[in-house]
Formats: sequence, C-alpha cells, structure tokens
Amino acid sequence: MNIGIFDSGIGGLTVFGALRKRYPSAGIVYFGDMARVPYGSKSREAIIRYSQQNATFLVQQNIDLLIVACNTSSAWALDMLRENFRLPIVDVIQPGTRKAVEVSRNKKIGVIGTEATIKSGAYEQAIHKIEPRSKVISCPTPLLVPLVEENWISHQVTKKILIEYLTPLLEQQIDTLVLGCTHYPLLKDTIQQVVGNNVTLVDSAEAITNEIHPLIESQASAQTGHYKFFVSDNPQKFREFASHILGLTIQDKDIELVYFAEGWIRKIHQL
Amino acid sequence: MNIGIFDSGIGGLTVFGALRKRYPSAGIVYFGDMARVPYGSKSREAIIRYSQQNATFLVQQNIDLLIVACNTSSAWALDMLRENFRLPIVDVIQPGTRKAVEVSRNKKIGVIGTEATIKSGAYEQAIHKIEPRSKVISCPTPLLVPLVEENWISHQVTKKILIEYLTPLLEQQIDTLVLGCTHYPLLKDTIQQVVGNNVTLVDSAEAITNEIHPLIESQASAQTGHYKFFVSDNPQKFREFASHILGLTIQDKDIELVYFAEGWIRKIHQL
Repeated sequence: MNIGIFDSGIGGLTVFGALRKRYPSAGIVYFGDMARVPYGSKSREAIIRYSQQNATFLVQQNIDLLIVACNTSSAWALDMLRENFRLPIVDVIQPGTRKAVEVSRNKKIGVIGTEATIKSGAYEQAIHKIEPRSKVISCPTPLLVPLVEENWISHQVTKKILIEYLTPLLEQQIDTLVLGCTHYPLLKDTIQQVVGNNVTLVDSAEAITNEIHPLIESQASAQTGHYKFFVSDNPQKFREFASHILGLTIQDKDIELVYFAEGWIRKIHQL
Repeated sequence: MNIGIFDSGIGGLTVFGALRKRYPSAGIVYFGDMARVPYGSKSREAIIRYSQQNATFLVQQNIDLLIVACNTSSAWALDMLRENFRLPIVDVIQPGTRKAVEVSRNKKIGVIGTEATIKSGAYEQAIHKIEPRSKVISCPTPLLVPLVEENWISHQVTKKILIEYLTPLLEQQIDTLVLGCTHYPLLKDTIQQVVGNNVTLVDSAEAITNEIHPLIESQASAQTGHYKFFVSDNPQKFREFASHILGLTIQDKDIELVYFAEGWIRKIHQL
C-alpha cells in the first residue's frame, strides 16, 4: 500500500505523522510545494492549477491512495481532482467535519483556517450537510502559518494573536473548534490554553486516519513502511522541519527536489 | 520613459509610490508575482529563476529601465539579471546602503529583512564595501510581511513583535535602521515608535528615487505618466492594496492577470 500526500509545504506532515503512527507498515510518498507556499492567500484558480499539478506528479509515483493534506486545496480543488484521477482521494475537510459534528454537544462549531479556506465556505457547507441546525462560526487566521514556520509555537505573542482571533468565537459559545489547516495542530497546546478545556479541538490529521481505515487495513501487513519526500524548493529547510515534526532521521537520499517547468513537474536533482 | 518594476507581490508598490511622486510624467509597468509570493522564505535557486522570468516578461513590455523592487531578488538575482539583460537595472539594496552609510553617525547600522535577504549577507557586504569600519547588526523579521498583508499596521501585537525583533539591535546601539524589505515602509510609523527618534529609518523606496535621477530626468517632461499593472494571481486583492497604498483609483483594465506556463509567462485574460 502506497499512500501519496500533498500539501503546500510542511503542514501536511502532521497528517503524515498521524498516518505513520496508525499504519506503520504503509508506504508514504509526500510532496510539499515549498516553491509556491502558502496556498492560503492565493486565488481559487491558482489553487486548482497547483493541486492538479501536484496530484499528477504523485500519481506518477505509483500511489494507491491520494490524501490532499492541505485544507485550502481540499476546499477548492477536490471536485476537480476526483473528476480527473481514478484512484481513491481523501481530503482533510470531510473527516474533520464529521468528527466536529460528532463531538459537539451544543452544535456551535468554530472553524479557523487560511483566508482561502474560510472564504470557500467549504467547512460551513460540509457541517450543514450533516447537521443543518449547527451554527458555524468561522474566522480566517492568516498569521498562524507564519508563526508556526517561525517556530513561535508557545511564544507570548502567539498567545496574544490567538486571543485576538478566538475571542469572538468564544463569545458565541462554541464548544468545538476545527483546526482547519494542517499547520495548526502544531499549535494545539497553545490553542487549548486560550480556548480552555470546555472547547474540544478537532485535528483533521487525526480524524483522517479513521476515515481511510477501510482502504488500508487489508494490505497493512504486507510490507514495511517506506517513506519518500519530494519538495519543489528548500529541501534542507524541509528536512529540518520534517525531522523535527516526525521525530525521524531523514536522510538526504529520502528527499528529492523537483520543480515545475514546461507545464510539468520534473525531477532535477537530489539534495 | 517607461520604467519596469517587479516585486514578489505588493511590497514594491512603495517604490512605485515614491517614483510616481518624484517623476509624475514617467510611465510605469509593475509586475507583482502574487502566485509565488513570498520570496523571502524561498531558496536562492528559486529566487533567481523567478526573477529571470519576471524580468523577461517586463522587458517584453518595452521598458527602458528595470527596477528590482524586491530586496530578496536584489540580494540573490542582481548579478544574473545584469548578465542577461542589456537595459539599466537598479536594485533596492545599493541605494538603501548608500543612504544608511551617509546618515549614520556612529556607523552602527541595523538591517531588517526577510530570511533570504538576511541570509544572503548582501546588505552587510554592500555596507562594508563603502565603509569597512561599520558595524552591521542584521536580523531576519519574517512575521512583518504577513502582518502588513493582514493590515495589522499599528496593531498592539505588531508593536510587541517589533519590540521582540528590534530590542537586540537597539542594545547594540544602532543609530540607523535599514528597512530591507519593500513591505516595511508601510510599518514605518510603528517601527519609529519602537526604536525612538534617535534612530534614523532608511526606506529604500525613497532612496532609489535619487539614484535613478540621471537615468530619468532627460525624458521627464516628454509625456504623461501611464501606469500598467500585471499580476500572476489575485488581481482583485492586488487592486485593493494598490489603490490603498498609492491613493489611486485603479481601473479593471489597468490590471492584467498573467501566469507562468510552459517555461514562459503568458497573458491569459483581463480581470
């Protein structure tokens, strides 16, 4: 079983980590589009184009299942991807949504994400489809990705920014908060401190591992997990982040730099 | 006289604004690479590739002079650009450097910029070339661009982040601070509050207008300024920012969306 994952950068590594923990024998191929990160501030058209290019590249790596580990891509590009590719495709929005509706008692659900994800209304629609009476309070939180990438995870300033962003949601008495961006689980502890213990955080990276269970279990014991990473820029920086987030020693040979040229992603050279 | 300007996004508009004020009759063609913004966290290789593509596109628009209004591109790609293109090319690092050395009394000069700009050491080298005895204290300040794009210009959190970034520079007794990113002049008032009135801020957007004087003056009265904007993504968002920063009413027809495909930037359609 070979699972392909793509994200705009390092955020999808939280999905990688959750998968690896749950399915240690699955092979995983990861693509991080470090050359065009972030997606959250880009247009719908650009996100669809980038997602198609990333999926095309991963399908060429002989994957059996594609995980779109970027909420922004999941929000805008999922329909296009399912129309254009024949393999099973799992996004991060549906699992997070189902989990949120399941755990919320008062059905007042907060959602935070990038500008593009929130603008798409994808979470709101998905939640209302399952539970039409839910009240969804969503808020774009564009500073959180740069804060994670700056590694100000538990910095006092990060806490202040979170208070600024989350106070209006808490005033609406949400009891559940969806972390609608794969970077955000890295801030989980700080976010929990700000919202208090009465609010349940939903991490789609965790939620997704349950969803793909039927697709994976059958082949789970057939082989040993093999990991391969592709990035479109900054392999060194990616390796540092990935080693840290995954707690893995990643070798140079495991990361390959690719870049998009002449309408196609081509491998150019190894790190 | 037709001046071409490129930047990774909206930051270069501060250069546009300074030029327009000083040379109201010059024509200006602006390219903002909104599809790949920011450059500051990307690799040297990516920045060189992007800069070459942007310059190629602008040269096709019949410009007489190219201004690299992005410090990150200026830091990494200037030599390549001057080797590959025959028109006069002006960067933002040299003018800022000359101005800083000129105004500093104690020759302790602070420089803030993106991760890539600071890592390049371009300011340090340029300053030492003019004044070898200067002490240059530089610091990457990666959160400032997202703060500007979030429009938290004079927000309390922005002030706290600036204090965090700038205190070590103030402790080294700098009397001059180079704003080494074209986004930063938009934070000038808040930065000045944090550093106090004894530190002179150097804005390369302003410094550059003096430098290009000999290249422009002769043709200055020949025509009336005509402005044209190209962006690789998000024309609407760009228009809002540009109208606000420049204090201009920008029409739909003045902004054109282009995107990079098959190794070349092609125009696809108007807004």
